[in-house]
Amino acid sequence: MILLVYAHPHHGRSIANRALISAARDVDGVTLHPLYDRYPDFSIDVAEEQRRLAAARVIVWQHPTFWYGTPALLQLWLETVLTRGFAYGEGGTALRCKQVLWVTTTGGTPAQYVHGAVHGRPFGDFAPRMEQTARFCGMHWLDPFVVHAAHKMPADELARFASAYRARLQDLVSAPQST
Amino acid sequence: MILLVYAHPHHGRSIANRALISAARDVDGVTLHPLYDRYPDFSIDVAEEQRRLAAARVIVWQHPTFWYGTPALLQLWLETVLTRGFAYGEGGTALRCKQVLWVTTTGGTPAQYVHGAVHGRPFGDFAPRMEQTARFCGMHWLDPFVVHAAHKMPADELARFASAYRARLQDLVSAPQST
Repeated sequence: MILLVYAHPHHGRSIANRALISAARDVDGVTLHPLYDRYPDFSIDVAEEQRRLAAARVIVWQHPTFWYGTPALLQLWLETVLTRGFAYGEGGTALRCKQVLWVTTTGGTPAQYVHGAVHGRPFGDFAPRMEQTARFCGMHWLDPFVVHAAHKMPADELARFASAYRARLQDLVSAPQST
Repeated sequence: MILLVYAHPHHGRSIANRALISAARDVDGVTLHPLYDRYPDFSIDVAEEQRRLAAARVIVWQHPTFWYGTPALLQLWLETVLTRGFAYGEGGTALRCKQVLWVTTTGGTPAQYVHGAVHGRPFGDFAPRMEQTARFCGMHWLDPFVVHAAHKMPADELARFASAYRARLQDLVSAPQST
């Protein structure tokens, strides 16, 4: 029902994403789909991915933010799976009205995401591309779940984020149209 | 002197990027570096890439825009080549004060990049990530060279863009500090 497309090239070394995935993976109705485990060689089975997407009602894109963008394999997944005739264009209605939740972690603190600080801008300035990708395919964009500076966070604070994420997914399972 | 890092997974099928590359490749002082030719298996030689970057004065990132972002191999290149201690962080000064020219082509017309149209926003809203990546590494961000709807463009109009690109590169070769 919820397809959790997860892209982290170093899951074992991740602190934040590992905590989030642990909280999410056994939520009833959530199917975890770790792209780097499935496609370590970057050779994506497009038909399989499209079947997974078509069967889902909610799609989660979870990944660390690398250079203000998505890890390479998730970018490749967008390029190869969201094809014309499937995701957009004539007959491309497979994703229409599905919900998308974008979940990302960053290395920076919120204070670093302001004009004049090291990341130069509000983090939201880097979000339009994921949002517009979803909207272009006719999907509903949900309020993103962003965790900043998660790898430096005290364990109890990270645990609170993980619980909030789990609750968010549970809500999406039980209340399909909530945004 | 100018390293033209070029990322297109289907160069042979590209109309716009092929025209731009043809105009750029024999400019004196420009070294064309086509990532998809060099690394068809996505296995990047980081040391080689860092040597190339260190030797350049101007770096060009040229690619088609895919889902409002960079092709996967260029994303992987950013992730693996722009490392801490090389591009940023302690001792990471190798790119400082180099100039970056971002060159990209899109499938949409300028009229589609407005609020309410299919691409939802001005194209510039999708640019901050490349700019901030450059700035984070202490590089000078030049005015980007963007060609919209290039694959549908009349040949003479595309030729004008290609000439303008060539002129831009020639200027960068001869006037290093121009922005």
